[in-house]
Amino acid sequence: MADLIEPRTLKGFRDYPPELMIPREQLLEKVRRVYRSYGFAPIDTPALEYAEILTGKGGAESDRLIYRFKDHGERDVAMRFDLTIPFARFAAQYIGKLGTPFKRYAMGPVWRGENTAHGRYREFWQCDFDTIGTTSNAADLETVLVIHDMMLALGFDRFQIRVNNRLVLNGLLEEMGLSAQAVPVLRVLDKLPKIKRDATRQEMTEIPGVSGEQADRVLLMAETEGSNEEVLERLQREFGGNAKAADGITRLRELTTAAVVAGVPTERLKLDLSIARGLDYYTGTIYETFLCDLPGIGSVCSGGRYDNLAGLYTKQQLPGVGASLGLDRLLAAMEELKLLPKVATPAEVFVVQFSAAHLGEYQRMARTLRAAGLGVEVYPDAKKVGPQLQYAEKRGFRLALIAGPDEFAQGNWKVKDLAKREEQTVPAAEVATALRKLLTL
Amino acid sequence: MADLIEPRTLKGFRDYPPELMIPREQLLEKVRRVYRSYGFAPIDTPALEYAEILTGKGGAESDRLIYRFKDHGERDVAMRFDLTIPFARFAAQYIGKLGTPFKRYAMGPVWRGENTAHGRYREFWQCDFDTIGTTSNAADLETVLVIHDMMLALGFDRFQIRVNNRLVLNGLLEEMGLSAQAVPVLRVLDKLPKIKRDATRQEMTEIPGVSGEQADRVLLMAETEGSNEEVLERLQREFGGNAKAADGITRLRELTTAAVVAGVPTERLKLDLSIARGLDYYTGTIYETFLCDLPGIGSVCSGGRYDNLAGLYTKQQLPGVGASLGLDRLLAAMEELKLLPKVATPAEVFVVQFSAAHLGEYQRMARTLRAAGLGVEVYPDAKKVGPQLQYAEKRGFRLALIAGPDEFAQGNWKVKDLAKREEQTVPAAEVATALRKLLTL
Repeated sequence: MADLIEPRTLKGFRDYPPELMIPREQLLEKVRRVYRSYGFAPIDTPALEYAEILTGKGGAESDRLIYRFKDHGERDVAMRFDLTIPFARFAAQYIGKLGTPFKRYAMGPVWRGENTAHGRYREFWQCDFDTIGTTSNAADLETVLVIHDMMLALGFDRFQIRVNNRLVLNGLLEEMGLSAQAVPVLRVLDKLPKIKRDATRQEMTEIPGVSGEQADRVLLMAETEGSNEEVLERLQREFGGNAKAADGITRLRELTTAAVVAGVPTERLKLDLSIARGLDYYTGTIYETFLCDLPGIGSVCSGGRYDNLAGLYTKQQLPGVGASLGLDRLLAAMEELKLLPKVATPAEVFVVQFSAAHLGEYQRMARTLRAAGLGVEVYPDAKKVGPQLQYAEKRGFRLALIAGPDEFAQGNWKVKDLAKREEQTVPAAEVATALRKLLTL
Repeated sequence: MADLIEPRTLKGFRDYPPELMIPREQLLEKVRRVYRSYGFAPIDTPALEYAEILTGKGGAESDRLIYRFKDHGERDVAMRFDLTIPFARFAAQYIGKLGTPFKRYAMGPVWRGENTAHGRYREFWQCDFDTIGTTSNAADLETVLVIHDMMLALGFDRFQIRVNNRLVLNGLLEEMGLSAQAVPVLRVLDKLPKIKRDATRQEMTEIPGVSGEQADRVLLMAETEGSNEEVLERLQREFGGNAKAADGITRLRELTTAAVVAGVPTERLKLDLSIARGLDYYTGTIYETFLCDLPGIGSVCSGGRYDNLAGLYTKQQLPGVGASLGLDRLLAAMEELKLLPKVATPAEVFVVQFSAAHLGEYQRMARTLRAAGLGVEVYPDAKKVGPQLQYAEKRGFRLALIAGPDEFAQGNWKVKDLAKREEQTVPAAEVATALRKLLTL
């Protein structure tokens, strides 16, 4: 007893009690259903990989955040820090067998030993979907549709998907004489919503070869306002002569037009030239998704098109497009927007154990109700009814079933609405119907 | 190009391609639904914990199999090797807030650096459920019911849950003068189905203080045949005078009687005195579950009652009962029994992209069908129809939708049954109904 071990989690890690885990499972189920409805197939890869697979050409930054160690066989191993690199390795290994196009989703935890400031966790879930093996704009359009239908399925109707195209940005930088500085300029531009205009301009001018005037032109373009058509027209007018930009403009026009035909309301899909995405490997359409009621938390679903997924592991060129839902960020947003019900049980119906002698009958009724699709918990101890009902209310059950000797003698059950504190007596055969009725009221 | 990284997984780890991941997700969904229907609430704990939490008093054996290392902050950390110990830590930390009884389930990967012989993997999923904070036999009965209903939900009807009670085993050993040797004797008895009678007897007699005669008596009892009633009667007759055994016999009688009342067919719940469970911490009812068509793979769902879950971390006594489904073992069994469909897509309906100009319309129809609950994939490239249908057949789609200029002009779609190679033309408004009809045929 003297040497109890203190029960605690590591810094940056958290437990999910039922109140958080019930909504998280519901979100995952909804996301999974949308991915599947579009024909994305699930895959899973190990949490641990050879370190060289995960670090690839990665520099000091990724090394710093990776959990990396020697296993029992002295192998240099590491825990995955995203789902993209394991997917690239997976694709390189099996694409011959899988065939293209290949559409996959993957959902699972990833680990990053990052600074834990700003509510960042060192373990968090990602939900990725990608279509590889095609350069078709149809896949770029579908990415918009998946994000759109997923946000709706998750219960949000006030959101906006912002799109841009790296070809447009690169063409535009080419015209401004900034081709050589494209990568750092876009990396800085990506910070615009976070660090605001002045700091962005400042950082941009600190890049060798970027003048204040050039930074102003980039920011002026990035801040273009107007409808999607107006933005496209301005782009066409000012940069249509550049081959790259023209290609990007065509794809963005196709994308926004087809999205409307497919049923996406115009206010939910917005061309935004300031969207840059920091990651170097994007080469075409790029996506970010914002909640209108909580824009400050940043993009909850982001992604883009890339020319080659798995170049580190195979000579086969694998172009593709995809996005990743930040599940835990979305969950935090829902907590902040008070969209999470305070319920600690996944079941609706509570069965009081009035007498231990009738345990088999309580469970038989419960099993009948479960077979009818209801969630039913039977209290394990034959305590007094009062404390059992208190437990049920605290957990968030909605209805209770009670039967003692009188009810069993008459073949009846008492059905109690826990919120309204109303009670009725129902014949055994009609309990399921009565409960359903109360639950849909 | 010269320095490609070889794409490969670590020894003992595996990827899940769609053909395996689709059924695994289905199993997980079914298991989750059964747990929830009984009122078990989901929780999740981190993959990484302080090493001292996971190793506890554990000796050399657990140390050998644990992935343990120093993190960036020089903390001694380890990856979880089961879901029970993290749950014990979780319970110790929050039980005051959660209240008892507390029913939780947890599903997720665990890691063990074990020998990879006999198809064992170093990363595998567990699905645990437990009721803590009660000694009531009602929770022991419910454990049987959950296993029973879960196996049915997973598509098995030929299975048997075998139960025993450690109190009976301990009482029996007490009567045979083997109290001091109880732990090693039960650990050896647990191997009976694997190493057979002679080797078990041999190993038992190697335990200091166990004679050949005693080993024979233990084995004779363990091999008792007969109906549950017959076994209970024999136990009562021979060991009913022992207080521990009598207590265990009463609980087993209650359990088997109430299970029948609750609707479990007698042939699916069998008293088996040879079931011992190797783990020292079980103190009451113990459970194993076998597939009648594949008994050789061993128990697919096992568990038991324990007196105290979290003694390492708290002074509060937390008795409980629970079991764990070996998901990957069950999946392997289903593979062997050829119960897994060879399908690489979660969607049933394939939409041919006949012309890129109609992309928005293809996706609009697809979204209508998705809203009606169907899974629909639109091919990303406007290739010839033949290769698109070949792709669809290879992936395992059941139906295809085709529309070209003629169909669009007339407001029709061609619906094709890919297995039967039959085709019909259907007005746009009736496509959903036609597809549903074909899918339920």
